[in-house]
Amino acid sequence: MDRRPALLALALATCLLPSLAPAATPYRSAQQILEAAPDRDWRTPDPANLLYMDLPAGRVIIELAPQFAPRHVANIQTFAHEHFWDGTSIYRSQDNFVVQFGDADADDAAKARPMGSAQKKLPAEFERATAGLKVSPLPDPDGWASRTGFVDGFPVGQDTKDGRTWLAHCYGALGAGRNNDEDSSVGAELYVVTGQSPRQLDRNITVVGRVLKGMELLSAVPRGPAPMGFYADPQQRTPITAIRRASDVPTAERTPIQVLRTDSKTFADTVEARRNRVDDFYKRPAGHIDLCNIPVPVR
Amino acid sequence: MDRRPALLALALATCLLPSLAPAATPYRSAQQILEAAPDRDWRTPDPANLLYMDLPAGRVIIELAPQFAPRHVANIQTFAHEHFWDGTSIYRSQDNFVVQFGDADADDAAKARPMGSAQKKLPAEFERATAGLKVSPLPDPDGWASRTGFVDGFPVGQDTKDGRTWLAHCYGALGAGRNNDEDSSVGAELYVVTGQSPRQLDRNITVVGRVLKGMELLSAVPRGPAPMGFYADPQQRTPITAIRRASDVPTAERTPIQVLRTDSKTFADTVEARRNRVDDFYKRPAGHIDLCNIPVPVR
Repeated sequence: MDRRPALLALALATCLLPSLAPAATPYRSAQQILEAAPDRDWRTPDPANLLYMDLPAGRVIIELAPQFAPRHVANIQTFAHEHFWDGTSIYRSQDNFVVQFGDADADDAAKARPMGSAQKKLPAEFERATAGLKVSPLPDPDGWASRTGFVDGFPVGQDTKDGRTWLAHCYGALGAGRNNDEDSSVGAELYVVTGQSPRQLDRNITVVGRVLKGMELLSAVPRGPAPMGFYADPQQRTPITAIRRASDVPTAERTPIQVLRTDSKTFADTVEARRNRVDDFYKRPAGHIDLCNIPVPVR
Repeated sequence: MDRRPALLALALATCLLPSLAPAATPYRSAQQILEAAPDRDWRTPDPANLLYMDLPAGRVIIELAPQFAPRHVANIQTFAHEHFWDGTSIYRSQDNFVVQFGDADADDAAKARPMGSAQKKLPAEFERATAGLKVSPLPDPDGWASRTGFVDGFPVGQDTKDGRTWLAHCYGALGAGRNNDEDSSVGAELYVVTGQSPRQLDRNITVVGRVLKGMELLSAVPRGPAPMGFYADPQQRTPITAIRRASDVPTAERTPIQVLRTDSKTFADTVEARRNRVDDFYKRPAGHIDLCNIPVPVR
């Protein structure tokens, strides 16, 4: 399984049969590959689809996915534009699972924040047709989906039989909390995955985007001691200063950010560099990578 | 994929053909299954193989796995018995990866703590022969190993061709940090997985045990701002009051703990209840579960 002897063998074969074998390129780490990436492999997200979640400890940057959940994303953009979340909190942190935030009093009609001009009822957007999506598939097997890959920087699962694609619950996924009815989410109460990818939620909840930057501000929030990670004492909640669309923020106050294009050769090369690590540390490259083990680089 | 119609169909078939079809048992959640478990399905870990890691915020309880890493475990037991870690710290917290702890000055000969009677050199113990292990295999496919399952409460990967078994890097796994040489770990510097399971480390590092209780005290440690999650400022480290073997602690000060037997029907039933969830929330049971998505219950 160690790839170095194989590389050596390939190099020897190259010497003997130069017209038949490709030249063996030396191993480069994902970091080395990124450093050599041309500017065209980086995209600048549309500021209309970026959310800034400002916490006392810093800024979390989220990219929304209107191509997967258009109705929810539109509602979330309305909530942000109308300052729905300003002064709310992270009111749940369950170990190895999620943080959840929004209006902690949403279920109390007397205290709940007004929803402004946002829609009060939305259809479930758990998945969509694969047709119309440009998918960069992974060759690696996956137990949760017949195929996995990336679309516009988002990890996805696919059912190749019924032609459906959905955003996968990987670390950093942003989902719309709901009650038991599948159409009971409106995008006001949101969660971010902070633990082992809970892929059993795929196709069961509307995923609306993912965190690009600042995950460490969400993942290290002290776990709530009450069941499911809620805080019995509201003082233990983490206050949210504001959640705004980047497009609503003056240009000078925006945080520059670019995301590696997941349909680029550079990205495919970084994935392969992680799938088969050949360095002084790794003695046995895995020969496999899991959808949720693949970071999508940002700069 | 929703299992309820299938259950209904099975129930009907049972009415019509009672002698041919098994009775359909109503779905029970993992929690309901646990509550009905007989006492014999719970085991009390050997206190010689338990570590108490006492932090200012509380106690982390770790179970060591001498059946997988006997030399490392023996060294760790020596370190604990001789108070090697008392007054050391968690000196690294890398988001979505690991916390690492021990002697932050281990690489500085002038400041490093004396290792007492512990061994200064150990062989790598990345894996072992499958022969002699009682494995409870999972039927679910896995991309990292030809088979997965549980041994004595520990998640394992297996190579069914070469007959090897290893402890898997799931959330909560405790590993022995090493340098580039595969035999460069001695068990003094340890790490615990706090993010998406880094299975690429399987068979590359000696895993020595797993956290049974108190993961939330490790996973919420603020991430280190320096590269790889180290803290440039030693003041930011989390102090470790003491790490002791439970067997070295007076009985009255021990924390009672039991672990569900992973070779019990109760455990298999909880796994199936998670693999195919049939409740008011889930609309589409996954029909699959990943080795590292399976909690091993403790009480």
